[in-house]
This record gives sequence, C-alpha cells and structure tokens, in this order.
Amino acid sequence: MASEFDLIARHFTWPSPGALLAVGDDAALLSPAAGAALAVSTDLLVEGTHFLAGTDPRRLGHKCLAVNLSDLAAMGARPRWFTLGLSLPAVDEAWLAAFAAGMRALAQAHGIELVGGDTTRGPLTIAITVIGEVPAGEALRRDGAQAGDEVWVSGELGEAACALLALQGRAGSRAAVFARGRERLEAPRPRVALGLALRGVASAAIDVSDGLCADLGHVLERSGVGARVRVDDLPRSDALAGCRDDPAVRAAVLGGGDDYELCFTAPASRHDRVLAAGAAAGVRVSAVGEIVAGRELVLLDGHGAVVRPPRAGYEHFSDG
Amino acid sequence: MASEFDLIARHFTWPSPGALLAVGDDAALLSPAAGAALAVSTDLLVEGTHFLAGTDPRRLGHKCLAVNLSDLAAMGARPRWFTLGLSLPAVDEAWLAAFAAGMRALAQAHGIELVGGDTTRGPLTIAITVIGEVPAGEALRRDGAQAGDEVWVSGELGEAACALLALQGRAGSRAAVFARGRERLEAPRPRVALGLALRGVASAAIDVSDGLCADLGHVLERSGVGARVRVDDLPRSDALAGCRDDPAVRAAVLGGGDDYELCFTAPASRHDRVLAAGAAAGVRVSAVGEIVAGRELVLLDGHGAVVRPPRAGYEHFSDG
Repeated sequence: MASEFDLIARHFTWPSPGALLAVGDDAALLSPAAGAALAVSTDLLVEGTHFLAGTDPRRLGHKCLAVNLSDLAAMGARPRWFTLGLSLPAVDEAWLAAFAAGMRALAQAHGIELVGGDTTRGPLTIAITVIGEVPAGEALRRDGAQAGDEVWVSGELGEAACALLALQGRAGSRAAVFARGRERLEAPRPRVALGLALRGVASAAIDVSDGLCADLGHVLERSGVGARVRVDDLPRSDALAGCRDDPAVRAAVLGGGDDYELCFTAPASRHDRVLAAGAAAGVRVSAVGEIVAGRELVLLDGHGAVVRPPRAGYEHFSDG
Repeated sequence: MASEFDLIARHFTWPSPGALLAVGDDAALLSPAAGAALAVSTDLLVEGTHFLAGTDPRRLGHKCLAVNLSDLAAMGARPRWFTLGLSLPAVDEAWLAAFAAGMRALAQAHGIELVGGDTTRGPLTIAITVIGEVPAGEALRRDGAQAGDEVWVSGELGEAACALLALQGRAGSRAAVFARGRERLEAPRPRVALGLALRGVASAAIDVSDGLCADLGHVLERSGVGARVRVDDLPRSDALAGCRDDPAVRAAVLGGGDDYELCFTAPASRHDRVLAAGAAAGVRVSAVGEIVAGRELVLLDGHGAVVRPPRAGYEHFSDG
C-alpha cells in the first residue's frame, strides 16, 4: 500500500510558481503583494452532512474548493493559495485521482495554488483554507449596507436545493425539472470575477450558502439595517421559472442554500455600475429589493403583500 | 438547542486586535507585516487516529493547536493567526467550553489569534491552519543541511510514545514510569521560542512528529545528504534515562513520534550560538550527530557500532 507521503506527492503536488516554498516542508512560505490585505476562510465538508455518500469524486473535488472560492468572491478578494486537509477511510487511487483532477481544474481556472495540507485516515472529511488578496479598503464586508441601497443577487437561486430534493426522491412529479439543477448542486461556479468587479461598487456582500433569507439576514444584522425584498423579482432558472408558484420552489429560492451566488448591496446611484460589473464578469445580476431603516427582512409579493419567510437557513446543529 | 452561530460566538469569539476583521464575515481580513513571508501549515486531527476517544477536551484543545504551532516553530516563524474547522458528533457545551479554554490558553501564550473557522456536525475532527511570519531569507527549511553540520535535538525524546504504551496497557512492569510522560503526549509544548532564536543559526530544521528517524530522514532527503547519529547522546527524560537499554524505550526515542521537539542542523562553527539560542529560549539542546556526504542515516551506539533503526515512522496509510 502506498505511503501517506507517496499519495500526497502523486496527486496533490502541482506546480505553484506563486509560492516561495509549497508542499514538502513544515509549512508553505508565501510572499503576499505589498500593501494587500489577506482574506482567509476555512470550510469543512463532511460526508453525510455536506454531500451525499457516493458523490462523483471529480465533482466533489470541484465543489469543496468552489465553496471556499465563493467566500473569497464575497470579499472581493483575488484567490492566491489554499491548503487541503483530507481524511479518507481508505486508499482508493481512482477516487483520489478523480477528486484531485476536479479540484485542480477549478484551481487552475481561478489561478489559486495548492501549497500545503495533511492527509490522514478517518471518516471522509475535507478541510480547505483559502487565502486571497484584496486592498484593505476595498474588501466587500457584511457590515457596509445602508438604508437606500439596492439589494442585488447574482445568477439564479433555488436550483441546487431543488436538485437535492430530486436526488433524495422527494420531488414527486417535478423530479425531471428539479434534476436539471444537479450540476449547480454538485459543481457550483464561484462568482470570483463578479466579486472583483464589485470592488468600489458594492457596499456589502455575502455568498448565498445557507439560503437567501438567512444570508441576507447576516448582512442586515452586521450592518444594523432592514430590507424589503420583492420575491417575484428573485432570479430563477428558466426551468424553475415555469413553476414559480410551487411552494417547494419558493422555499428553495428563499431558503434552500447551496446556491453560491452573491447577495450584495450598492447605493442606488450605482445601479448602472452594478449592471456593468455583471456584464464584465459575464454574470446576470438582478435588483431584488432595497435596504431600509430598522432590523427586519420583509418579503413582498407582486401585489406588495407581505409573504411569510421560509424556515430559517440550514444550520447544522439546529436541525438534529 | 443552540444554533451553529451561537455556539461559535459563545466559545470561539476571542479578542483579535491583530486582525483587520476576524470571525463573522465570509473571510477574515489580515494585514501582514511589510516584507514578511507567510508560513502556512494545516493539520487535521481525527479521533481514533490521532488521539484516543475520551481524551480530556482541555488537553485536546491544547494539543491540536500545539502540533500546528510546532510546524511554525520548525520554520522559525512567529505565530500570528489561525483558523479552526471543527466537526462534532453532537453539541456538548461542557466539552466545547473545556476544548476552547485549552486552545485559548495556548493561543494567548504564543500571541496567535483565532480569526475564522467552521463548525459542523460529523465525526470528531479538528482542522487547524496556522499562519506565521518570518523574513523570507531567515526561514528554517528542510533543505539547507550540509556535510559537516552538527545535528541537534531539543528537549527530550520518547516520552510521548512511552506514555501511549502505558495508556494502551502495553507497558507491562514499566507502566508507572512510562505514564509519567502523559502530559508530554497530551499537552506538548511547541518550541516556538527556540525556532525564533535559531533564525540565522540553524541551516535546516523539522519538528519531530513522526519519530526522529523518519523526520530527520525528510531533512536528509530534501538536503541531499546523510547523517550519523549517536544513539546514546539522544536526550531522554530522567525517567526514561533509567531504562535506556529497554528496547521499547529505544524504539520510542528513535521512532516513537508525537515528541514535537525540533531536530535541526547547524554548522559546527555555530556550536556555541546554538547553545546560546537554547539558553535564550529556556530549552535544552543536545548535539547528537553530524551531517555527512551520501544519503544514509547511520545510527551508532556508544562503542561506534551500527545500530539497526526501528521500523519507519508512523504513516497513517501504511499501517492499515
């Protein structure tokens, strides 16, 4: 059986010209750009909690890095380096090769380099820490939203949550439609380019991982403001737009999670600059509401009537 | 039941004056010192693989951070920030409080700040990424050893491995002696001050986590050299010095692992500077051999006869 060191060397030693010293010492040595602040984020993904057993390893490798890149996107940070902690129940060369290939392809697409990590035996768990760079004053934080700002969402919401229902056999007659979102669930596209384009434009940002209502709620809490959101304006894929009154679709769009889109705010005077940022990044951006005084998130239907929010976003320790 | 967010806030939001932005946004924002290189290391600790079920949570919190600080020590880096990924099978407030307290006490002692992380439900797993700073040209790497250098070891070796034998009921009549090392096993002291004092003095360094022979072997491989080590000169605690001819003790000293001492090399001309660095850091340092041409690690007894090395260092995927 291959040793731990051989395994790491074979699948996870990639070129890393942007590091002074990468895999193979007690620590990586990195040289940040002068004057840049570092954006650092860690996510832990556990089989059975964050992904289903038997998930395609190539997509899993992609997704584990994607959810971390999504955090950098939400800060407006440029991805630079990451470390990988990998706990595996057994050595499976084919699985490792596919997992590494999926991760590597996404890493190369975003110019982020694997510079260190740790591999061990244990339940399937993936721990990634990403490091990006951003001029300190231009970082997109959660605490900058102000009354009068518009609320924006990138891409489309709800597809991943609907696809999960289909995979779990809980989609009923909508299974075929919901299953179309499987790629969104298993291989989300982090909005890194949009985050960079929103530097100096957005006043606050967060990535939508736990569901729009929960994540926008974090922005409101940190910024000390409220918001009104027009539910009918929330962006849906063509497939889901065809069943917009379906309660499962509405719940997925408002609170489903795993979208990895950006929810952000910007002064109304920058409306056109936001549209230009979306165009530059090649990502649809939709104005869906406005920031108001107070602390409350109010959802409105097409007639201006208040819509009841779905149950709070997914919290790992509150649904057990 | 408390939500994930409440749990994190309650136990892991500590003051972090050295970060621009810490826990609570999509990523932490950090401002490295001008001109410093970053030393970054990740370790993943899994219950049953790296520590026994039922380990005292305060000591576990200490140890998880200590093994990461030991990597920074081996680079000569000053600890600055860390992130914590924590997977827990269930919410246990008392356990969390003790775990956090053990981690926090060690963090404060070394001036390292918790700036982010992720908490989730799953098998007990702890993923820590540490970030330190070091002037790029002064980092202690594995690849700088040269023929003629002396080989040094800090502190004492073998206590942790002997204590593990005692805890596992495999120490026989030596149980009482071996059990004295339990604190070394469960609450190792990372040699951060020594690593800093060895900047500009040591030519190469590594921390002894997998056992002296395995870890010194990494230095030899990366540096393209061999070494002769005098087994009788390897530092042992007073307790273990009393049973130095015991095969279990010899195996523990040479290959037991979990010591978290530093093994380093330095030109013989700097012998006194190494002693001064040890004195400044308050850590015993012992010259135990020399670097030679070739690629081989040769162990010698007190009569100059060659000693057979123990089985290779602990590798998680090779002993299953």
